[in-house]
Amino acid sequence: MSYTAPVKDMLFAMEHLAGIAHVAQIPGFEDAGLETAQAVLEECAKLCEGVVAPLNVPGDVNPSAWKDGKVTTTPGFADAFKQYAEGGWQGLQHPTDFGGQGLPKTIGAACIEMLNSANLSFALCPLLTDGAIEALLTAGSDALKTTYLEKLISGQWTGTMNLTEPQAGSDLALVRTKAEPQPDGTYKVFGTKIFITYGEHDMAENIVHLVLARVAGAPEGVKGISLFVVPKFLVNADGSLGARNDAHCVSIEHKMGIKASPTAVLQFGDHGGAIGYLVGEENRGLEYMFIMMNAARYAVGMQGIAVAERSYQHAVAYAKDRVQSRPVDGSVKASATIIHHPDVRRMLMTMRAYTEGCRAMASAAAAAYDAAHHHPDAEVRQANATFYEFMVPLVKGYSTEMSLEVTSLGVQVHGGMGFIEETGAAQYYRDAKILTIYEGTTAIQANDLVGRKTARDGGTSAKAIADQIAKTEAALRASGTADALALAQRLQTAREAYVQVVDFVAGQTKASPNAVFAGSVPYLMLTGNLVAGWQMGRALLVAQDKAAQGEDVQFMQAKVATARFYGDHILTKVPGQAESVLHGADAVMALPHEAF
Amino acid sequence: MSYTAPVKDMLFAMEHLAGIAHVAQIPGFEDAGLETAQAVLEECAKLCEGVVAPLNVPGDVNPSAWKDGKVTTTPGFADAFKQYAEGGWQGLQHPTDFGGQGLPKTIGAACIEMLNSANLSFALCPLLTDGAIEALLTAGSDALKTTYLEKLISGQWTGTMNLTEPQAGSDLALVRTKAEPQPDGTYKVFGTKIFITYGEHDMAENIVHLVLARVAGAPEGVKGISLFVVPKFLVNADGSLGARNDAHCVSIEHKMGIKASPTAVLQFGDHGGAIGYLVGEENRGLEYMFIMMNAARYAVGMQGIAVAERSYQHAVAYAKDRVQSRPVDGSVKASATIIHHPDVRRMLMTMRAYTEGCRAMASAAAAAYDAAHHHPDAEVRQANATFYEFMVPLVKGYSTEMSLEVTSLGVQVHGGMGFIEETGAAQYYRDAKILTIYEGTTAIQANDLVGRKTARDGGTSAKAIADQIAKTEAALRASGTADALALAQRLQTAREAYVQVVDFVAGQTKASPNAVFAGSVPYLMLTGNLVAGWQMGRALLVAQDKAAQGEDVQFMQAKVATARFYGDHILTKVPGQAESVLHGADAVMALPHEAF
Repeated sequence: MSYTAPVKDMLFAMEHLAGIAHVAQIPGFEDAGLETAQAVLEECAKLCEGVVAPLNVPGDVNPSAWKDGKVTTTPGFADAFKQYAEGGWQGLQHPTDFGGQGLPKTIGAACIEMLNSANLSFALCPLLTDGAIEALLTAGSDALKTTYLEKLISGQWTGTMNLTEPQAGSDLALVRTKAEPQPDGTYKVFGTKIFITYGEHDMAENIVHLVLARVAGAPEGVKGISLFVVPKFLVNADGSLGARNDAHCVSIEHKMGIKASPTAVLQFGDHGGAIGYLVGEENRGLEYMFIMMNAARYAVGMQGIAVAERSYQHAVAYAKDRVQSRPVDGSVKASATIIHHPDVRRMLMTMRAYTEGCRAMASAAAAAYDAAHHHPDAEVRQANATFYEFMVPLVKGYSTEMSLEVTSLGVQVHGGMGFIEETGAAQYYRDAKILTIYEGTTAIQANDLVGRKTARDGGTSAKAIADQIAKTEAALRASGTADALALAQRLQTAREAYVQVVDFVAGQTKASPNAVFAGSVPYLMLTGNLVAGWQMGRALLVAQDKAAQGEDVQFMQAKVATARFYGDHILTKVPGQAESVLHGADAVMALPHEAF
Repeated sequence: MSYTAPVKDMLFAMEHLAGIAHVAQIPGFEDAGLETAQAVLEECAKLCEGVVAPLNVPGDVNPSAWKDGKVTTTPGFADAFKQYAEGGWQGLQHPTDFGGQGLPKTIGAACIEMLNSANLSFALCPLLTDGAIEALLTAGSDALKTTYLEKLISGQWTGTMNLTEPQAGSDLALVRTKAEPQPDGTYKVFGTKIFITYGEHDMAENIVHLVLARVAGAPEGVKGISLFVVPKFLVNADGSLGARNDAHCVSIEHKMGIKASPTAVLQFGDHGGAIGYLVGEENRGLEYMFIMMNAARYAVGMQGIAVAERSYQHAVAYAKDRVQSRPVDGSVKASATIIHHPDVRRMLMTMRAYTEGCRAMASAAAAAYDAAHHHPDAEVRQANATFYEFMVPLVKGYSTEMSLEVTSLGVQVHGGMGFIEETGAAQYYRDAKILTIYEGTTAIQANDLVGRKTARDGGTSAKAIADQIAKTEAALRASGTADALALAQRLQTAREAYVQVVDFVAGQTKASPNAVFAGSVPYLMLTGNLVAGWQMGRALLVAQDKAAQGEDVQFMQAKVATARFYGDHILTKVPGQAESVLHGADAVMALPHEAF
C-alpha cells in the first residue's frame, strides 16, 4: 500500500495555524518561510514515499535479527538510511555550526511525520539520534561536541537513549548502572540497560549511547544520576574509529509491532568496563535526560499522527474499492463501494478528524517551540515556552491515544480482510500500541500535565489557553455561518467543562493527590479533545474564507466539514470526561488491593 | 499466565440478575437451579483452567499449519478437544433426545465464557459446531438429524458455517456458490468459500460443513440462497464414514490473532462436485443461516467478555507484582507495587466494570432466551423473545467493542513489558480485534439494532427497557445510600438521553435513513453503556443488602464499588454519544467521496 504525504494539509497548518510567516521573522529563520517549507516538504515526500514507505511491510515480515551480538536490520534499511543521511535529513533542525540545516521545528515536524508515516520502525533511528544530539548540544563539553555532533548530524553515526533497566522502567530512582571515575577523567560503566531502541544495528559506523548511571558515592534516588556518552567504538583524536568499547547487545526483544526496529538489551562493562564520558556535571543526568525526553516526546506524538494518517489512507483506498451491499438511502440500486455506507463514512471521518486535529495542534506547538528558543524578545520567548511546555504532554499523550482508536478503525473498515496480515492494516494497529507506552506512558504524560503544567502555576497557563479558545469562539460566532456557529457552541461547552476541571486540578493536587491523579488521564484526554478542536475551529475560520474566495475550494470545504465533524463527534465527549474527573475519583480508589 | 474462572461473579449474575430460580421453574429445567449451576461451573472451570488455558500461548506461538490440504492444529488441541467432548460439554445446551444435557443457556453461557477466556482459538471449534447443531435442529429433515446430530453433540464430529465468498463478505446477495440438483435428491455443490473457521483440522473424525449456495434457476439476491450440509466424509447408511467428499481446504489465513484457529479457504466441487444435502426448503437458506448466526452472535459477545476477563486477570497480577515509583499520596515512602498508583487503579477498574457489566447484561439476556424458548405461557415467551432479540446486537456489538478497550488497557498496565510478546498481554489485544468483525461487524449489529429492533416496532421494545431502567432508578433512590443515589442519577441522565435517541431512530429511519445510520454505532454503544449500567444498578441493590447482612462482605462491597465506578466513568459517556447521534449526522455525510 503506497503512501502519499499530505503536503497540502501540512502547509495549511503551517501557514494558517502555526503562522510560519511569524517564524520566518525570527533572526536565523529568515529563509524558512512558506516557500522553503513547500520545497523541503516536497523533497522529503519523495524520499519517504519512494524509498522508506516501501520498506514498511518488509520490515514487519523480515524484522531485525540478532546473532552473536550483531543485529542485522531488514534488507534495504541500511541503504535507505544512507540516502536519508546523504540528503541531510538528520540535520534538518540542527545548528548549521555542526553541519545541520538550522530549519525551524515548524518545518521539521512535518518531515518527522512523513518519515514516520512511511515507516515507524525506520524513523525511530533518526528520532533517537535527534535526542542524543539535543543532549550534547545543551550539556556536552566542547570536546564532546567536536567529537560527536557532526557525525551524528550527518547521519554517519547514530544515537541512543539508555534509561531503562529491568527493575527500573519509568522509575529512574531505581537506576543501578554504575560509573567509576578513572584517573584520566573518563569513567568505567557497568550495568544492564533494556528497551534500547536501535541499541545495536548495521546502518551506521558507530553508535553513540547516552547512558544514565550512578557515580560511586552519589546520592540515592534521581538526584544521584549522571549522564554519560558511551560510544560503541571509541573515537581517536583524529576522529577515526578506535577500539570496540565494552558495550554489547546480548539480545533483542520479540515485540507485537515496530518489529524492524531492534529493541536491544545492552550489557555495559562485562569485560572490564565500558569507557564513558561525562556529559555536563555529575548528578545532573536527570535534567539532561529531560532534554532528550522532551524532544523525543514531541516526536512520539508525531508518530501517533503519522501512523493514524497512514492507516487512514489505507482505509480510504479500501473503502473506495471494495463493493459490498446496497446503500441504505436507496441511492444506488446494486451493491456499491463501501464508502457509500454511513458507518464507513463515520469511521473515515473520525480517523480524518482526529488526525487533522492532532496535526494542527502539533504544528501550532512547533511554532511556539521555535519562538521559545529563538525569538529575540525574552517575554515572547517565555510566553511561547509556557505554551509549548503545556502542549508536550498533549502532543505525546493525546495523539498517541488517538492513534490507537484510529488504527483500530482502520482495521475495522477492512472487515475480515483487516485481520489478515497480508492486507497491511493490522500492522498499524500492532505498531501503534507502543506509542502510548514508550518515552513515558500516557499516565506519565498526564502526571506532567497535572503537576508541572497545571498545578504548579495554579492553573494560569491552562486558563490562558481557555481565554484564547474563547476568542476563537467569538470569531466563529462573528462569521455567522451554520458550521461556525455549531462549532462555536461545541467549543464553548467543552471549554467551560475544561475550566471547571482546571480549577479542580489546580486546587486539589496538593490536598487530595489521589483524587486528582485518579482523573489525570481523563483530564489529559479532555484537554487534548478541546485543544485539537480549538485548532480545528481556527482552521474552519480560514477555510470558509478561502472557499468563499474560490481558493482551492474542494480542500477548503473538506476542512470545514472535517472541523464540523470534530465538533459534533469528538468535542461532545468533553462534558462526560469532566464529570468523571470532577466526581469519579472516589470510585477509582474505593476497592482495596486485595479485592482485585 | 494462569486463568481462574470467575465462578462467584457468574453465579451472582445468574442468581440475582438472570433469576435462575425462575428459569428452574420452566418445565424441562427443573434440575437446573443454582446448585446445578454451581456444580456445572466448577466442573467446567477445572477443564478450562487445567487443560484448555495452558494451550493459549502455545496456540499463538505454534499455530495451525496447512500442508497438502491437511491442517495440523497446535499440539495438545486434539487431546483437549477429546476431553471436552468426553466431558459432554459440546452437548451442554442441546436436547437430551440427541445425547445433549438439555441445560438452559443461563448456565451454558457461563461455560462458553470460561472456555473462551481459557483459549479463544480453541473455543471457536465448539462455537461453530453449536451453530451447525442449531440449524439442523431447527430446519433439518429427520434423516439429517439422525445422521448428524448425535455425532455433533457428542463432539465426535464438528461443524462449520460457510457463508463468505471472496466477492461477498457481509453481502450475501452476492453469493455465487452453485448447487445442482441430482436425480437421487442430493445436490452437487461448486464454489469457493473463505474465512471458514475450523474448515479443516485434525481434532475430529468428520467435519459437517453448512454451506450457503444457489440452486440453478433460483432468484437473484438473498431470496435465492439455500442451505446445504456438505460433510467432509460422506456418511454410510449405518453411520460409518464413507468416501471423501469433494470439499477441500486449499489454504489457511495468516492472521493477526486467534492464530491457533485455522481460517480456511474451502474449494467445493473442483473434482466433479461436492455432494450436498438440502437443509429445509430451497431458497430459505438465509432464514436458517440467521439461526446459526444468532447463536453465534451471542457466543461472540461472550468471547468479548471472556478475553476482557482474561486480560483483566493478567493485568491485576502484574499490577500487584511490579514495583515502580512512589505513590502520589505519600502513603508509601519507597517505590511501591503499581496497583498503588491511581491511574493503574483507574485502568483496572475500567476493565473490571466493563467486564462485569457486560457479563451481567449477557446473563440477563440468556435467561430471556430460555424463557422465550421454553416457558409454557405464550405471552411470557413473546415478551422474553422481544427482550432477547433486542439484547443480541448489544451482547455482540457492545461486548466486543469494549473488549478492544479492555485488552488495550491490559497491555497499557504492563508498560513496555506489555509490548513484548512473551508477556502474554499482547495476545489478547491481537486476538480481540477479530471479535468486532466476524459474525457481523459492529456496524451490522448496529443496523440490526436500528432497523429490526428499534424502528420496526416504532421504538416500543426500546422504550420498554427504558421503563424497566426507571424502576431500577426508583429502587436505587428508595435504598437511599450514597452509592445508590449517585448511580440512580447517572442512570436517569443516561436513560433520558437514550429515550431521545430512540425517538429519533424510530421516527427518522424511513424518512432520513442516512441520518439515522450515520449514528447507528454510537446508538449501539450508548445503549450498551446504559443497559450494562442498568444491570450494574440492579447488582448494586442486591450487593448492598447482602453486605449489610454480612454475607460475603468483601465480594459484595466490591460489587457496589464497581457499580459506582461504572456510573461515574462509563454512564457519563452517554449524553455526549446522544448529542452525536441527534446532531452529528450531517457532518458524517458532508464530505463527497472524492474529497477523501
